[in-house]
Amino acid sequence: MALTNPMNPMPMGPWKITVYDQQHFQGRRMEFTSCCQNIMECGMDNIRSLKVECGAWVGYEHSSYTGQQFILERGDYPCWEAYSGSNAYHIERMMSFRPIYSASHKECRMMVYDGENFMGKQWEMCDDYPSLQAMGWGISEVGSMNVQSGAWVCYQYPGYRGHQYIMECDCHAGEFKHYREWGSHAQTFQIQSIRRIQQ
Amino acid sequence: MALTNPMNPMPMGPWKITVYDQQHFQGRRMEFTSCCQNIMECGMDNIRSLKVECGAWVGYEHSSYTGQQFILERGDYPCWEAYSGSNAYHIERMMSFRPIYSASHKECRMMVYDGENFMGKQWEMCDDYPSLQAMGWGISEVGSMNVQSGAWVCYQYPGYRGHQYIMECDCHAGEFKHYREWGSHAQTFQIQSIRRIQQ
Repeated sequence: MALTNPMNPMPMGPWKITVYDQQHFQGRRMEFTSCCQNIMECGMDNIRSLKVECGAWVGYEHSSYTGQQFILERGDYPCWEAYSGSNAYHIERMMSFRPIYSASHKECRMMVYDGENFMGKQWEMCDDYPSLQAMGWGISEVGSMNVQSGAWVCYQYPGYRGHQYIMECDCHAGEFKHYREWGSHAQTFQIQSIRRIQQ
Repeated sequence: MALTNPMNPMPMGPWKITVYDQQHFQGRRMEFTSCCQNIMECGMDNIRSLKVECGAWVGYEHSSYTGQQFILERGDYPCWEAYSGSNAYHIERMMSFRPIYSASHKECRMMVYDGENFMGKQWEMCDDYPSLQAMGWGISEVGSMNVQSGAWVCYQYPGYRGHQYIMECDCHAGEFKHYREWGSHAQTFQIQSIRRIQQ
């Protein structure tokens, strides 16, 4: 079964995710090839395991693509800790999810700025950076980001840890001027690792 | 202050880590440029925040480089969730740590096998792989690994999540024939993402 998202007229692409209402791929099972705005509308109370079979997806803690974000790439996620983000904040909820249409490992370009609103020192990114500081970025924060192409996942801490922020060239016209635009769960400018999202 | 590790005669290299016994870089502070086998021997009961100023390091849950492993690259780690590994297993302990001398982003080569003891299907790796399945690896497990050069971090789940296993060309002669050789905390062959460690 697949829900279509009125905000996104794109036809079903090469995306497939299978979700289960119990851990370890047990219980009720549903397949999706496009967005799901609220898993409860499909008769599931929650998602407790999933398999991404095609494409890159983003999962959300709450319905309507809100709350914590989780990057979901191809593979098996047998339990909540396999897909959840921050270690600090023990979530066992994933109520909505959608494909990342702009993911393209080959063509990823983003400008990061140390100030809000595209001000201050800037740096053009086109690779994966497990530690921004190791690559010469002087501070543990990013003030704003402008995604020219592809999709990226930014992390609060080095080594791809902590809160995740999915940044796409086709959301907000790729412009993220302040942490308030990074996601409804963002509460700080702290970003210490960034990588490209592949399809 | 720096402890020297009798097992490792290498002189102090370009590595520096500063650890604190309280969160957010508060409390007692100590600097290290080489291995620390047991932080309690330095008069700290635990490490609750740290800054990696130079080089790549590996932290361990227990003393003598045992228990869960955490990759520590350059950056700020203000609290346990910034450095810890698996979300499943809430650890707030880091009792020992050491530099990763063989880390070299430029020259990383590893052979992975789907069977134990270097048997079965094999694949030569030389890049970062947030999803092995997206890259064509058919299963969610790796049976054995042979590190020819550099150092790698392998993760239980896609997107660099779950238990971490640090694999170095200069440990076990780079040979990891079974998950029992991946680390004292390893209990499964499950590996779904792998990346290079940069200095």
